[in-house]
Amino acid sequence: MPPTSETLTAERILEATEDVLRRHGPAKATVVDVARALGVSHGSVYRHFRTKAALREAVTKRWLDRATGMLAEIAAQDRDPEARLRDWLAALFEAKRRKAGDDPELFATYSVLTGESVTTVIEHLTELTDQLTRVVRDGIDAGTFTVADPAVAALAVFQATGRYHDPVYAQEWEQPGAEEEFTALVDLLVRGLRA
Amino acid sequence: MPPTSETLTAERILEATEDVLRRHGPAKATVVDVARALGVSHGSVYRHFRTKAALREAVTKRWLDRATGMLAEIAAQDRDPEARLRDWLAALFEAKRRKAGDDPELFATYSVLTGESVTTVIEHLTELTDQLTRVVRDGIDAGTFTVADPAVAALAVFQATGRYHDPVYAQEWEQPGAEEEFTALVDLLVRGLRA
Repeated sequence: MPPTSETLTAERILEATEDVLRRHGPAKATVVDVARALGVSHGSVYRHFRTKAALREAVTKRWLDRATGMLAEIAAQDRDPEARLRDWLAALFEAKRRKAGDDPELFATYSVLTGESVTTVIEHLTELTDQLTRVVRDGIDAGTFTVADPAVAALAVFQATGRYHDPVYAQEWEQPGAEEEFTALVDLLVRGLRA
Repeated sequence: MPPTSETLTAERILEATEDVLRRHGPAKATVVDVARALGVSHGSVYRHFRTKAALREAVTKRWLDRATGMLAEIAAQDRDPEARLRDWLAALFEAKRRKAGDDPELFATYSVLTGESVTTVIEHLTELTDQLTRVVRDGIDAGTFTVADPAVAALAVFQATGRYHDPVYAQEWEQPGAEEEFTALVDLLVRGLRA
């Protein structure tokens, strides 16, 4: 059997970090806690993540990216851009709502972490608006959408639906009527893109 | 000269309350501080506002309503509904941005107070979406807008522009590009209403 340190992957450290964050909260979780949970020295953790800040950023990125893969698939599909746009926005809303509803404590923890990792969050948002830009561009190419600039329109759509993906609105996501209001908003935006 | 207590109006108390909130912050401001600032007994203040909570709600409502009057005027004007809609949204954004930028400490204070006065905030938001509904309905009547339900469409427009009036986004309002992004968003929404 290989020694523990050889099987210590970045992914295993990030898993343990999330567990530690869940147990101790974002204020108290330390690299020593993570190393202890893995049964390794804190030096072994630092070989993968050079600072505590780097570890926190990586675990935040991992959490943010959990939904992004599925969204990227929807954005890249070879079918009606309007349907893709609707599905993409609905999948984003659903992914966020699930994250907030299934594990509110972890969601609150990551809300603190995202506040620290501004660059990571900006990269995540850029990735999402890039996906949306691709769908809008496909819609323009197909003649479905008539807006002039796909990136400008995609950013407007992303901002317009902020209420349904920005964590500051998490408590609104389970309110009665949220689903209908989301649909009405998406309908209005799709009409605007088509026009 | 009449004694101070006779000239003590609700408006004077609310002005003094805002000053006290500005000086002491929302956590420490008391009714006794307000009475002292006015040179009256705290009983005199309680004759106008029966509880500390009622006083805090009233001062919050006064602050929220400061922009509402001008917006109501725009909503009620007898001219092109699309221009009115654009002006109304721009005036709301501008009023919020000015409040946040001119006096950030008072803005932060009122952000705490609005968190306490949920009913007052809901009434304020209802007043605003009612104004917007009126403009959208005028647009439907004039044949400019083609949406089915003015209240549903107005709520969608209000939610879609949340980034430019919800205080949680205050730090975005002075970012480079905010003005252009706001205009692109309003353009998209107007296209959606016209369609």
